[in-house]
Amino acid sequence: MNVKIEKLIKQFAKLPRVGTRAATRIVIGLLQDKTGRAESLANALLDASKTIRPCKQCGILTDGALCEYCLDDTRKNGQLCIVRDLSDVLVLEKSGVFHGRYHVLGATLSGVNGVTPEDLNIANISSRIKNEGIKEIIFALPNTVEGKTTQQYIISSIGNYEIEFSELASGVPLGGDLDYIDDGTLTLAFGGRKKL
Amino acid sequence: MNVKIEKLIKQFAKLPRVGTRAATRIVIGLLQDKTGRAESLANALLDASKTIRPCKQCGILTDGALCEYCLDDTRKNGQLCIVRDLSDVLVLEKSGVFHGRYHVLGATLSGVNGVTPEDLNIANISSRIKNEGIKEIIFALPNTVEGKTTQQYIISSIGNYEIEFSELASGVPLGGDLDYIDDGTLTLAFGGRKKL
Repeated sequence: MNVKIEKLIKQFAKLPRVGTRAATRIVIGLLQDKTGRAESLANALLDASKTIRPCKQCGILTDGALCEYCLDDTRKNGQLCIVRDLSDVLVLEKSGVFHGRYHVLGATLSGVNGVTPEDLNIANISSRIKNEGIKEIIFALPNTVEGKTTQQYIISSIGNYEIEFSELASGVPLGGDLDYIDDGTLTLAFGGRKKL
Repeated sequence: MNVKIEKLIKQFAKLPRVGTRAATRIVIGLLQDKTGRAESLANALLDASKTIRPCKQCGILTDGALCEYCLDDTRKNGQLCIVRDLSDVLVLEKSGVFHGRYHVLGATLSGVNGVTPEDLNIANISSRIKNEGIKEIIFALPNTVEGKTTQQYIISSIGNYEIEFSELASGVPLGGDLDYIDDGTLTLAFGGRKKL
């Protein structure tokens, strides 16, 4: 393959959760396009890389000092939802299930990947609790060992505020066939069974 | 979501075979990265969009007038493999199954998507047959109605050269469980069964 194309694919493929296959599709799609899409996308990306930064308060990517959620006072309802990254915010927003403020960690603690508390966006959680009158912190982190470890770390580091902590329920997804559900989820669903 | 980020995701998501989910991952991955990956990737893409063009002979993307396959005289073995796009070339090269020259159409005929013969890179196939001494044309197009229609169109448009045409075999993939194979493939595999 042409060296330049190969390099581009490798650059895309290095992104988190993007494999070589998706990267190859994207690069070929871009370079085969005859309407100048590659150039306009490169310019948009260049512009974004210069202007988009994490919101100073919550960590959501934005081109202002504060993001749209932190600027929206109707969302100051005492609830703070802690998520790993922006894509989690998008999923929650799409569902319309949450109307409070967000806090984006940027990662979860991981011994294997060398992610330590210093790598997480957690320094200002305590000051947010005070300034925004947070009464409940809802953890919407990945349902993994890393997610749970991170959750425990944050709870223990927050100190003595009068605050409620909660996490998303574990269990069988809606429409989920029991055949296709892993043992861990089944165990959690069983343990958390509801009386009827 | 921030308007700039939303726009970027939409631009990526418009690429062929890239959905909103992959596009979102890529954009967030790029913008969250702290090592300047977004900027360097944008610059690489900008450079590629200016220098990468289809090979004048076969249509493979390259930064020269001719691609590496067309420049390689050891590949002038009388075989020409017709594929839809560069990703098909990459798959075939990875398998090491083919050692001749390629011809990339860029698309397949499709009434639904409005792809007509004028949109295909086919004008120079006849001259390639003459100039490169092609004896066999192997169609490695998608095994779909569009692929078969395109194949028929090319065969009928090539005219009176003494040439062999072939297409990839249809059937059960290696390791393929019959349970998971669609009826169409099963019918083809049955019809094309081999005597032992």
